[in-house]
Amino acid sequence: MATTTDFKAWAAAHQQRIETQLQAVLPSPEVAPPRLHQAMRYAVLGSGKRVRPLLAFAAGEITSADPARVAIAGAAVELIHAYSLVHDDLPCMDDDVLRRGKPTCHVEFDEATALLVGDALQSLAFQLLSEYRVADDTAVQLEMLKLLAAASGSRGMAGGQAIDLAAVGASLSLPELEFMHIHKTGAIIRAATLLGAHCGSRLEERAQAKLDHFAKCIGLAFQVVDDVLDTEANTATLGKTAGKDAQQNKPTYVTVLGTAESKKLAAGLREDALAALEGFGGRAQRLRELADFIVLRKF
Amino acid sequence: MATTTDFKAWAAAHQQRIETQLQAVLPSPEVAPPRLHQAMRYAVLGSGKRVRPLLAFAAGEITSADPARVAIAGAAVELIHAYSLVHDDLPCMDDDVLRRGKPTCHVEFDEATALLVGDALQSLAFQLLSEYRVADDTAVQLEMLKLLAAASGSRGMAGGQAIDLAAVGASLSLPELEFMHIHKTGAIIRAATLLGAHCGSRLEERAQAKLDHFAKCIGLAFQVVDDVLDTEANTATLGKTAGKDAQQNKPTYVTVLGTAESKKLAAGLREDALAALEGFGGRAQRLRELADFIVLRKF
Repeated sequence: MATTTDFKAWAAAHQQRIETQLQAVLPSPEVAPPRLHQAMRYAVLGSGKRVRPLLAFAAGEITSADPARVAIAGAAVELIHAYSLVHDDLPCMDDDVLRRGKPTCHVEFDEATALLVGDALQSLAFQLLSEYRVADDTAVQLEMLKLLAAASGSRGMAGGQAIDLAAVGASLSLPELEFMHIHKTGAIIRAATLLGAHCGSRLEERAQAKLDHFAKCIGLAFQVVDDVLDTEANTATLGKTAGKDAQQNKPTYVTVLGTAESKKLAAGLREDALAALEGFGGRAQRLRELADFIVLRKF
Repeated sequence: MATTTDFKAWAAAHQQRIETQLQAVLPSPEVAPPRLHQAMRYAVLGSGKRVRPLLAFAAGEITSADPARVAIAGAAVELIHAYSLVHDDLPCMDDDVLRRGKPTCHVEFDEATALLVGDALQSLAFQLLSEYRVADDTAVQLEMLKLLAAASGSRGMAGGQAIDLAAVGASLSLPELEFMHIHKTGAIIRAATLLGAHCGSRLEERAQAKLDHFAKCIGLAFQVVDDVLDTEANTATLGKTAGKDAQQNKPTYVTVLGTAESKKLAAGLREDALAALEGFGGRAQRLRELADFIVLRKF
């Protein structure tokens, strides 16, 4: 049984590993065009909890995946996540000035550069997954590309953003809110988990479905906790502007359910997620600890 | 020998084929989120010369590629091109209101939607190339994905845009201008040509290099002709705002070389392109005709 101290050390080591991988795959600012490459590195490196790559590493332990492969898959997912943050923060979207404790990309550089940073980070994610060998079978690797592309697109993350935009000032039902978040946050968290597992030995269908269910529960729990933190934490702790949802009149789990019920929902999702992992035994220990980290985190 | 009438019929038939393919792969406006899907269809369907897919079809004839496969690869390239136009037209970039004879996407919808349209079109391009079988060998298909991703990213098209932004008001040398356009326009035109060929039988290395040289020449010729047309044609003919480059104080082939020298350069690039095709015989007839179409076009 791993202890909490073990988990902290594991998480820190793998956060470092993904940081090193991202540093290696992002073009150097010496390469033309220098300002774009500088801005891409600014937007990605040096901060972020790296929850998605950690999920990939933890899921990779279930299938005995080579961590060098998971580092590539995890970096690809993190690049998609980073691009979405850069575009989200633009004036025509959330118009935010603070992200991961630093000025947002368009504030530090300019809007046009931030737009291109997001565009180029997305391309780079797909380049990584096609350029490096991340699965024994090239057909599995194509599956992984399809999974990430679908999770990113209009029926995944970008679609979730569009639903989020349309929801400003609207009153959503709980199922509508859930639909939005399954797309906006859930799709990429699910992709991270499944991609990590795909780097290793093939899971039988039932195990794959269990892992998928874990990922869906944890993706939703992540958002519920985010909504609670947005009302309870302060800007310095979050590293992004706190209270933003209320200020923008966006429906959240807190506005729909209240804080107490939201916390209960997150706790229930955590239990569902852990139950889905029962058949995996000790190999799923890191995933269990990550579930706890996600639900019990303070920032 | 194909006649000009033949070429016109071939081009019209293949433009129709790519239109049908794009209609089929773009999500229906009935699918959530409806407004995003409506805007994606608006940005892609019903107009555009489809030069890139035509290059893919013509290159596919060299390797006896299945046109059904080329239609997928050509659609993926066209989605990347369409996304770049939507983002280019945004207020923080070229701030344009007219594209392909219609209001630009952010004018017809709104800026946030146009941003997400571009993002989601890019994801969809990579989804197509990973979801459908476009090459016999899955390893070749991964190569194709890598080619398109690299051509789209910061060392390809997005990088070219960044260089273009930095060039506003600057005076560029001919090599600098060429460097910009090799990235901004050339990379995707090259990708279109090579992807079309990759859908069929494998070319030996020398033939592949010849085709690559053809694509590079034609990509540059395309931009030189574009610059000439921007000064000589009017807005109604172009379907986009004419005289825009001069108005934005952007260096072009016309400002650097003058109109007469630019036309000579385009003619020289056409000759180089045609010379590269010599070894291919009749199978390259459509590529030759496309080279002529690109250099001699009036819009």
